[in-house]
Amino acid sequence: MSKLTDVPKRILIGRALRSDRLGETLLPKRIALPVFASDPLSSVAYAPGEILLVLSVAGVSAYHFSPWIALAVVVLMSTVVASYRQTVHAYPGGGGDYEVATTNLGARAGLTVASALLVDYVMTVAVSISSGIENLGSAVPFVVEHKVLCAVLVIVLLTLMNLRGVKESGTLFAIPTYVFVAGVCLMILWGAFRGLVLGETMRAPTADYHIKAEHQGLAGLALVFLLLRAFSSGCAALTGVEAISNGVPAFRKPKSKNAATTLTLMGLLAVIMFCGIIVLATVTKVRMAENPATDLLRGGVPLGPDYVQNPVISQVAEAVFGKGSVLFVVLAAATALVLFLAANTAYNGFPLLGSILAQDRYLPRQLHTRGDRLAFSNGIVLLAGAATLLTVVYGADSTRLIQLYIVGVFVSFTLSQIGMVRHWNRHLATERDPAARRHMIRSRAINAFGACLTGLVLVVVLLTKFTHGAWVALLGMCIFFATMTAIRRHYDRVSEEIAAPEGPSEDTVRPSRVHSVVLVSKIHRPTLRALTYAKLMRSDTLEAVTVSVDPAESRALCEEWQRRGIDVPLKVLDSPYREVTRPVIEYVKSLRRQSPRDIVSVIIPEYVVGHWYEHLLHNQSALRLKGRLLFTPGVMVTSVPYQLASSAAAGARARRRQEWNAPGSVRRGPAQVRPKGPTAPKS
Amino acid sequence: MSKLTDVPKRILIGRALRSDRLGETLLPKRIALPVFASDPLSSVAYAPGEILLVLSVAGVSAYHFSPWIALAVVVLMSTVVASYRQTVHAYPGGGGDYEVATTNLGARAGLTVASALLVDYVMTVAVSISSGIENLGSAVPFVVEHKVLCAVLVIVLLTLMNLRGVKESGTLFAIPTYVFVAGVCLMILWGAFRGLVLGETMRAPTADYHIKAEHQGLAGLALVFLLLRAFSSGCAALTGVEAISNGVPAFRKPKSKNAATTLTLMGLLAVIMFCGIIVLATVTKVRMAENPATDLLRGGVPLGPDYVQNPVISQVAEAVFGKGSVLFVVLAAATALVLFLAANTAYNGFPLLGSILAQDRYLPRQLHTRGDRLAFSNGIVLLAGAATLLTVVYGADSTRLIQLYIVGVFVSFTLSQIGMVRHWNRHLATERDPAARRHMIRSRAINAFGACLTGLVLVVVLLTKFTHGAWVALLGMCIFFATMTAIRRHYDRVSEEIAAPEGPSEDTVRPSRVHSVVLVSKIHRPTLRALTYAKLMRSDTLEAVTVSVDPAESRALCEEWQRRGIDVPLKVLDSPYREVTRPVIEYVKSLRRQSPRDIVSVIIPEYVVGHWYEHLLHNQSALRLKGRLLFTPGVMVTSVPYQLASSAAAGARARRRQEWNAPGSVRRGPAQVRPKGPTAPKS
Repeated sequence: MSKLTDVPKRILIGRALRSDRLGETLLPKRIALPVFASDPLSSVAYAPGEILLVLSVAGVSAYHFSPWIALAVVVLMSTVVASYRQTVHAYPGGGGDYEVATTNLGARAGLTVASALLVDYVMTVAVSISSGIENLGSAVPFVVEHKVLCAVLVIVLLTLMNLRGVKESGTLFAIPTYVFVAGVCLMILWGAFRGLVLGETMRAPTADYHIKAEHQGLAGLALVFLLLRAFSSGCAALTGVEAISNGVPAFRKPKSKNAATTLTLMGLLAVIMFCGIIVLATVTKVRMAENPATDLLRGGVPLGPDYVQNPVISQVAEAVFGKGSVLFVVLAAATALVLFLAANTAYNGFPLLGSILAQDRYLPRQLHTRGDRLAFSNGIVLLAGAATLLTVVYGADSTRLIQLYIVGVFVSFTLSQIGMVRHWNRHLATERDPAARRHMIRSRAINAFGACLTGLVLVVVLLTKFTHGAWVALLGMCIFFATMTAIRRHYDRVSEEIAAPEGPSEDTVRPSRVHSVVLVSKIHRPTLRALTYAKLMRSDTLEAVTVSVDPAESRALCEEWQRRGIDVPLKVLDSPYREVTRPVIEYVKSLRRQSPRDIVSVIIPEYVVGHWYEHLLHNQSALRLKGRLLFTPGVMVTSVPYQLASSAAAGARARRRQEWNAPGSVRRGPAQVRPKGPTAPKS
Repeated sequence: MSKLTDVPKRILIGRALRSDRLGETLLPKRIALPVFASDPLSSVAYAPGEILLVLSVAGVSAYHFSPWIALAVVVLMSTVVASYRQTVHAYPGGGGDYEVATTNLGARAGLTVASALLVDYVMTVAVSISSGIENLGSAVPFVVEHKVLCAVLVIVLLTLMNLRGVKESGTLFAIPTYVFVAGVCLMILWGAFRGLVLGETMRAPTADYHIKAEHQGLAGLALVFLLLRAFSSGCAALTGVEAISNGVPAFRKPKSKNAATTLTLMGLLAVIMFCGIIVLATVTKVRMAENPATDLLRGGVPLGPDYVQNPVISQVAEAVFGKGSVLFVVLAAATALVLFLAANTAYNGFPLLGSILAQDRYLPRQLHTRGDRLAFSNGIVLLAGAATLLTVVYGADSTRLIQLYIVGVFVSFTLSQIGMVRHWNRHLATERDPAARRHMIRSRAINAFGACLTGLVLVVVLLTKFTHGAWVALLGMCIFFATMTAIRRHYDRVSEEIAAPEGPSEDTVRPSRVHSVVLVSKIHRPTLRALTYAKLMRSDTLEAVTVSVDPAESRALCEEWQRRGIDVPLKVLDSPYREVTRPVIEYVKSLRRQSPRDIVSVIIPEYVVGHWYEHLLHNQSALRLKGRLLFTPGVMVTSVPYQLASSAAAGARARRRQEWNAPGSVRRGPAQVRPKGPTAPKS
């Protein structure tokens, strides 16, 4: 793309380029799947293990419940996918859970969902990276020996990448995700082939270990509670399912249909992989414990604190492919990579949600404008900081982190499904076409079932996980909720304060005159330029003002002023304490006091330099003065810039910065305002 | 002082108040002595000990050299005091060493002195506080057990005090300094009385210890070197002597005479205290070693790492007043306090020197204006940071820190004395009056002798201390020198670039027209005000411009614009990527391209808020846009502020900030420009 400096051409090509870019950005299904599904698909790397971990509390005999729990997760997954298929069709604008909850349940529900999602993004980074490190560690022991350090390094790396503005590319997501999916499917098929056809016995590395049950022979309510806890942990497989509903605008047309198909495909893959891994784990006799050091026994002896418990997926891969085989290593690498991509998803989703929240004035407005690097940077740094904190506090232990993870997910699932039920109710009230009504009633039934099921799971998760860490997630949600409420309240107060009254007001009453004051410290080019510009503005009075910090200098200034015959009167302000700001402020105030209906225009010559350290050497008093003048009513402050040679460097930097890619641009779809869903009138 | 809001009255009383304050600020000798002498007087708390420490290397027998070394220090002290009496008379403007060196030896010598002084200020803080902690520790063991922590805490406390802007008060200095001087003198007198009149034997707590000499029976060159090293260490007593020559303007009239008298008084007190302590230390048999843990023996056994070596002054006080006596504790407290005040001296001197260097454009200009809190804050934080670093690295060990201290002092002594010789030479070339000539020749002789002696000491210090740490001080000086040279070079380059040519130039050629552009995002009071002000400026064309980030919003804006009948045309700029900055910049550039001889005035309505967090919520795009516009030639940027109700808080804060006292104002004398010494024409 060559540089165009010609205006009409640029305007012409500008349009062309735009549609170009539009086409380029829209995602075909085969790319959309990995972009949006890396998060939910990658969760099969840890979810099955979590189920076994919890069951191990009741001893190895409880492991026979695992297929039933997997079945429950599959039912839940199918329900959620079916529910979100409805959402995708009803909200093609890609508002996602926040939009659905806000539109149908009101602002507070929407804000709750938003808080839950923000916490979720933080957890996605912490959990995915910790789990990725554990998977990588099954092939590279060094990594697992320095778990926290490595996890933090990966966070830092992702953060830098996203701050730098790496363009999110579909291909980047596609390759590792497809390698991962293919690897897991191959593992399942090869395992089935070896077991069923060849009749071989595959044994996981932990198959010979025994589990010391913390509660042997659990029964009744206690057993039910344990099974529910195992189920809650297994629900980690559902994280990220809602991503597609946020990203409908990024799909090729027909958007909703393609998105729904991708959603179904993703659900199918997740279910197959999840069940396959659970079955293989049962067959190969994988043994896991919450406290492997004490509860896993080899020949009756605990394994001790040095034992590193590898993830289920890597134990199964070892059993099926053989330890150290090429396929084993490739799968471990692909798993880690997909998990890191899942973490990167949060880096993209966080600013995207932030932008929507900013549009609704729950977050600073600048988050709304795309490509605002500074605003995005703040969001990214906040996300990375919170994730690092959690990773360090929880020792990069994915099992402990997952306890915090699922609350947020199910809060947003539940509220969003309830919102959808309301959505259909509202539309049923007006819809007359019987076919459309039948369709809506069916959708409502699906969403109602989804709401009940996810609501139930939320209760279960809260009951079983609250003391295990879910309270931290709830606390995080409360903090986000309170902050956003405060911001919104501030914006509302200001907007009320500045609302323009109808008819004439004090702001439209024309002041009688303008006194222009040019600040002068020396006679140099910036001053001369400022004077020239000031004269051009034809204000009622024009004078130059200098602050006499050094009597000798100001005497010299006056002499040169006269010698050059500058036709603007020069006023010297006395400054006994060698201050600059105060005398000017006092002078401006005195002008206003003499004629309160006039305004004062203060014109300041400013150097424009190219480097931050040069900035420290210039304009400091001008900046301070400007800041103070803005507090003085009836004043306008004009900067007349003088570009020093070094400013060219900054110009180039600014241009480079403009070409920066905001994270999340691929999944956000083409640049456009979030359209309100056609069937979603704002309540 | 009641608040005056009446302008003429304020102008009248302003003058009166000023001379009031002037009188109030000028220091009588009895206050000037403690203000300026806390640094040199406090150094007698550590200098005698340093001599003994070095001598101990050759065993206790070398202690009998200590009176001779003390004598050498006294001779040096007298010479330096005599030399500076000449400076005080010749430079009543209080330029100090930097002024003298710059005027007489050129800019590079001046900058060298300035670098040395800056390093010195850092060292004063580190050494004085470390020594203060050690003295306090002789009475309060806890302090010496957590030496580094306590030292850093004191630095932090002093830093906060100075950042906060505590008004430097003469009394604050006077009481502890006089208590300290009186205490030491009483100790000397009481010791002499007990020893000579009562014939009692006073014994220091370490009198029974033996010293394991590192080099027994040192002789010849090695002994001379050791004695020179001991002398170098003793020279620590001279630090801070030059302070008075910087502060002449703060004295009451006749300034020079009073300053010279105070200087003599200070020298006299220092000599008495220094010699008294050395003699008492010899009489009471104080034993000190560089490595007390291994080299001090009690009954033939080393004292081991737990032994804490108390300063000489506290050991002598224990011997004379008795351990734990009231006088002992009072003297220890006064010593510590005076040392902390000496450290505070550096907090005052650093910005003072910085202000002078800024005037000569070696440091950012804003340091020059008094009461510029931000600039002073940066200097104070820099000073505190460097001092903390040294304190931590050297474990708050005054003995190790002193190795770094003396280089800077003697660099500035020597260069300043050489400068004075040149000064007299120059004046002798024109002076015809025989009496005046005689006087000048005498002064020149004193300064020449001073230059030789201090130069010799500098060589000795460099030779004996270089590897002990003096290289660190030299490195620091080089860094300061290089930084200041670079800053000066930058200012010179810019000043050349912006120098106003004689006659008409591109900056005085009147552009043909002004296009005014008011940026509009919504119709609210700030916008209305900006439009009203813009209309008043009577530019050639006036239009309002809005960036269409959301088509629906901008449509609504256009409708409201029409409905309200605002008589300024509204232009909507398309922004396909939801950016604000780029479309505006492009539009302004296109205006300039259409008519390159015109200028564009961009008017931005701005909210003025009271809290930094509110600032994060507003004006961010406006600020960014302003920053980018300044890089565009032919543009002037006007802010029309709209003061929100919360801005009142910031106004009050700004007023409070204005009443802040810059550190060092007492010793700087009344506010006025540094007058050039009448006998010191700028070279």
